[in-house]
Amino acid sequence: MFTNIISPRFLETDALGHINNTVLPMWFEASRDSIFRLFNPDMDPQNWKLILASFNVSFHAETLFGTDVEIRTFISRIGKSSFDAYQECWQNGVKTVSGTATMVHFCHKEKTSEPIPEHVITQMKQHGIPAE
Amino acid sequence: MFTNIISPRFLETDALGHINNTVLPMWFEASRDSIFRLFNPDMDPQNWKLILASFNVSFHAETLFGTDVEIRTFISRIGKSSFDAYQECWQNGVKTVSGTATMVHFCHKEKTSEPIPEHVITQMKQHGIPAE
Amino acid sequence: MFTNIISPRFLETDALGHINNTVLPMWFEASRDSIFRLFNPDMDPQNWKLILASFNVSFHAETLFGTDVEIRTFISRIGKSSFDAYQECWQNGVKTVSGTATMVHFCHKEKTSEPIPEHVITQMKQHGIPAE
Amino acid sequence: MFTNIISPRFLETDALGHINNTVLPMWFEASRDSIFRLFNPDMDPQNWKLILASFNVSFHAETLFGTDVEIRTFISRIGKSSFDAYQECWQNGVKTVSGTATMVHFCHKEKTSEPIPEHVITQMKQHGIPAE
Repeated sequence: MFTNIISPRFLETDALGHINNTVLPMWFEASRDSIFRLFNPDMDPQNWKLILASFNVSFHAETLFGTDVEIRTFISRIGKSSFDAYQECWQNGVKTVSGTATMVHFCHKEKTSEPIPEHVITQMKQHGIPAE
Repeated sequence: MFTNIISPRFLETDALGHINNTVLPMWFEASRDSIFRLFNPDMDPQNWKLILASFNVSFHAETLFGTDVEIRTFISRIGKSSFDAYQECWQNGVKTVSGTATMVHFCHKEKTSEPIPEHVITQMKQHGIPAE
Repeated sequence: MFTNIISPRFLETDALGHINNTVLPMWFEASRDSIFRLFNPDMDPQNWKLILASFNVSFHAETLFGTDVEIRTFISRIGKSSFDAYQECWQNGVKTVSGTATMVHFCHKEKTSEPIPEHVITQMKQHGIPAE
Repeated sequence: MFTNIISPRFLETDALGHINNTVLPMWFEASRDSIFRLFNPDMDPQNWKLILASFNVSFHAETLFGTDVEIRTFISRIGKSSFDAYQECWQNGVKTVSGTATMVHFCHKEKTSEPIPEHVITQMKQHGIPAE
């Protein structure tokens, strides 16, 4: 599991008084930096190696301004050239949002997917979802 | 089908040179205003009647800065108190992104879901996905 | 004067119930596209010719969700290599926000400012602030 | 001085490869939370006591993705009912952006400005700009 603390910004609230739904995909993307780093240790955008194929988000409770949230990121599936990142947003002991992003290891020059390197897979396996 | 034209903003691009993935949920939410209006003709946030239960987004091609996009919104499922909105983003004749949002008719005062009113269902049916 | 219509997005509101202050610089940047186009007719980000030196924004009234705004953009100063764009946000007949951005004609390859081309100055002069 | 560390988000970059200009007002607003807290210790949006009258931002160098920034916030002017917050964004030892926001102590119910309470002024004075 990777964890990341985020302080909700007042501008991320909406007129209903809590964090707008469209903010969560942003927090989740920002929290996948730990995964990007496995592929791109230098984090150079010119050498980016992942593309997002799809993602889903489910809302379980309101996320509020005024208290930090913890984003928990797991590697929930490892395929040949793609993988899933399952993420949760926790605030005040409550899981308010969860979601899964499917990412593809991609060569922007060749415009094709590529197998995930073995040394990355080894690291990914340390961040799986623990058996309950 | 509801349609909505959006001009991509330069600030919505990212260092990879095209529209960032987290922008699409924002365009899709903005384009669901036509649906909100069926429930809340006055669009008063203090009288909001819908909550977002979940959504998913799939990326088919890069969305670019410099050309308008058309967001197409369909009511793809009508349940008792919830429904699905299926949406597509089109640019230069290409469907670049699609996604589905599941929304619930909700009473914020009672904190419970409520049946979708009959007159709203009647209107929704005019915006279904056409049979191919 | 250049004019641009923007539909406020629900996600651009904040918990105080109106459009968050940080949204205005985004609307203003998006509305300066007409100016960018004078320098970069093809709007290719790889061939961008302007940098933002500074900007200021003043808030006169609340901007609300539910009604379109009109952004009015004027060229309020033309220097040798820099110029000012003065902008106003109007909603329901009220000027809610105004601001000025100072931009520099810049060569990203040489990393130096460059004189504004004569043909651009000619066009800019058609968009000045009218004498009252 | 108040200090706040922010990790730039990849989605905050733009097609020019660095952090988009419109992001800085968001980081600055988020970093003024320390000031809001002086007025609203409970950070309850329903009891908000400040409004933003105006702000300006100046760009000195590019802000990049991949390295944390430090936002430094000073109280640079204290008036009867308004004050200025001067802020700087530092990254890798370079001051990349600076700006000043003018805020007003405001009663949303009465819709009028109010004198800044003495105990808040006392605290504000501890965060002034040090004499050089």
